[in-house]
Amino acid sequence: MKIAVDAMGGDHAPEAIVAGVAKARDQYPHLEFLLYGKSEQISKLLTDQTRIKIIQADEVIGMNDEPVRAIRRKKQSSLVLAAQAVKSGEADALFSCGNTGALLTAGLLIVGRIKGIVRPGLLSTLPMIGEQTGAFNLLDSGANAENKAEHLHQYAILGKYYAQKVRGIADPRIGLLNNGTEPHKGSKITQEAYQLLQADPAINFVGNVEANSVLRNQADVIVADGFMGNTLLKSIEGTASAIMHLLKETIMNSGVSSKLGAVLLKPAFKQLKAKINQAQYGGAVLLGVKAPVVKAHGASDAETVYYTLGQIEQMLKEQMIPDLVDYFSKLNQVEKNKVIEEKSK
Amino acid sequence: MKIAVDAMGGDHAPEAIVAGVAKARDQYPHLEFLLYGKSEQISKLLTDQTRIKIIQADEVIGMNDEPVRAIRRKKQSSLVLAAQAVKSGEADALFSCGNTGALLTAGLLIVGRIKGIVRPGLLSTLPMIGEQTGAFNLLDSGANAENKAEHLHQYAILGKYYAQKVRGIADPRIGLLNNGTEPHKGSKITQEAYQLLQADPAINFVGNVEANSVLRNQADVIVADGFMGNTLLKSIEGTASAIMHLLKETIMNSGVSSKLGAVLLKPAFKQLKAKINQAQYGGAVLLGVKAPVVKAHGASDAETVYYTLGQIEQMLKEQMIPDLVDYFSKLNQVEKNKVIEEKSK
Repeated sequence: MKIAVDAMGGDHAPEAIVAGVAKARDQYPHLEFLLYGKSEQISKLLTDQTRIKIIQADEVIGMNDEPVRAIRRKKQSSLVLAAQAVKSGEADALFSCGNTGALLTAGLLIVGRIKGIVRPGLLSTLPMIGEQTGAFNLLDSGANAENKAEHLHQYAILGKYYAQKVRGIADPRIGLLNNGTEPHKGSKITQEAYQLLQADPAINFVGNVEANSVLRNQADVIVADGFMGNTLLKSIEGTASAIMHLLKETIMNSGVSSKLGAVLLKPAFKQLKAKINQAQYGGAVLLGVKAPVVKAHGASDAETVYYTLGQIEQMLKEQMIPDLVDYFSKLNQVEKNKVIEEKSK
Repeated sequence: MKIAVDAMGGDHAPEAIVAGVAKARDQYPHLEFLLYGKSEQISKLLTDQTRIKIIQADEVIGMNDEPVRAIRRKKQSSLVLAAQAVKSGEADALFSCGNTGALLTAGLLIVGRIKGIVRPGLLSTLPMIGEQTGAFNLLDSGANAENKAEHLHQYAILGKYYAQKVRGIADPRIGLLNNGTEPHKGSKITQEAYQLLQADPAINFVGNVEANSVLRNQADVIVADGFMGNTLLKSIEGTASAIMHLLKETIMNSGVSSKLGAVLLKPAFKQLKAKINQAQYGGAVLLGVKAPVVKAHGASDAETVYYTLGQIEQMLKEQMIPDLVDYFSKLNQVEKNKVIEEKSK
């Protein structure tokens, strides 16, 4: 199993990327890596090159490059070359900590969609907070600005396979992000999506989930259109960090006894931070394309890179993509047959 | 100035409502109140009935009643009678802690839209968290499941007037909730809305605001379609409460020293809770109808009811509604003239 790595993407590239790859290489003996980037820099960071091949890339796509233009123009960039390796079959998965839009574009335009998938979606993993521990998946968390109900239906299947294969959940509960729990609630899209999800025996549909309870173990996978999902993801992240900030600030501005209290609570705060840390779940996955295409946070350290490569290893080992390809090709056949039947009537 | 009060709406009705009304009555000598509900219960709670008139209502709309049906069928409910009083001009504003959907429906169907307003929106006030203190307004925070760009444009005007009149902000910064800061970002609706807001000299438009930074003093008023706004509002509330819960839980499950630390931090935690408490800003306001229609949280205590009545007093004193009516009638006239000009060419 070969993973094509954009070694130049992210705030701490290439150091953090190379260190994370080396750790994953030692951990997973059946994994091989293709590292794309400034070969001189990379090789300096890599004492042991076992199962790691470094490929020179003259260009780098920056965080502020316009995604589509960057993918079209920077043919010699570490990201485009890595994506090409996946397309050609030389590599089985694509990983980057760089420009998210560019990675998504590379996934769509270079790696390409699975037959039958209309609009690939970005899957994120978030921690459950509150009474429950664990995590849930959210998709589309931002690959699309607009979606139709049928896309959300496909996200339910894509998310189900991810939750089964990577998270080991036998029969994942699928929820629909909506502005009320009743079936009739929501926009035309969510109302249509509700009907599609409800009617599909392949999905363990648990109904609508409201944004104020997504963190509280309502479902294992929550589907939403990309704009809504992105808004939800960002507001959860923004609110969590704002409150942690306010907590610190409030303590700092209160008396000596509070400061002492804070010292005593350090371990508890540390635990709290660990619980709401998303990095432990790896990166965001573009689902619906022909190979795992995974984005880790731009600020990722070696540890996060290592976790994320483990997440990819899981998808490859569990044959997630071949099974998805199989599922949707059979689905297409069923629908074609329906059409033929209709005509023959 | 008369406020029509649904005395039976909310978890602590009528006690909390009546107590809050009594306090507001004592605070604002120019306010009068019409209390609709079970007159026997209410009068028992009200020793001094100065400037308070109790009107018997035989029915009550429950939290689980289907809004439109409830408004149409329960003609003798405290909410419908209170709304009728506003429609007839007997009262100047409508207040309830009850069924939100029913209150919105009463606002739309009984109180009625301001001429020129297409889709009234619900305005919520949220605290800024982080480096900045203060608050911001969000609308539509849930009156609509779907909106067009022109509705968002109207929300900018409605929100501007609210921020000026009630919060005393001379030139409120208006932001557009979007999935990126660049002008071209977002869905067709947000892209169109961006152009409309950008082009309107009456609006101090500060551009797109992402969901992860809304709490950090990006704008005084943030406009969004009702579904997006509702999702944002609920996820902020849900995340904040989940983290506070997790904090408590983590402390309780850690050692003695942590518990001691928690005791020492009590005042700081109290401050923190106070800062993120929305009740201090009053209730949610349905803007775009012919009178202030205000919803306070179902769990509101007397204090929150009192705050919210103060918020209504401010809208009435500052002539917010007449000024809005004036603004949109002039706007209509301008547009009519344009049409006439076009034709005469």
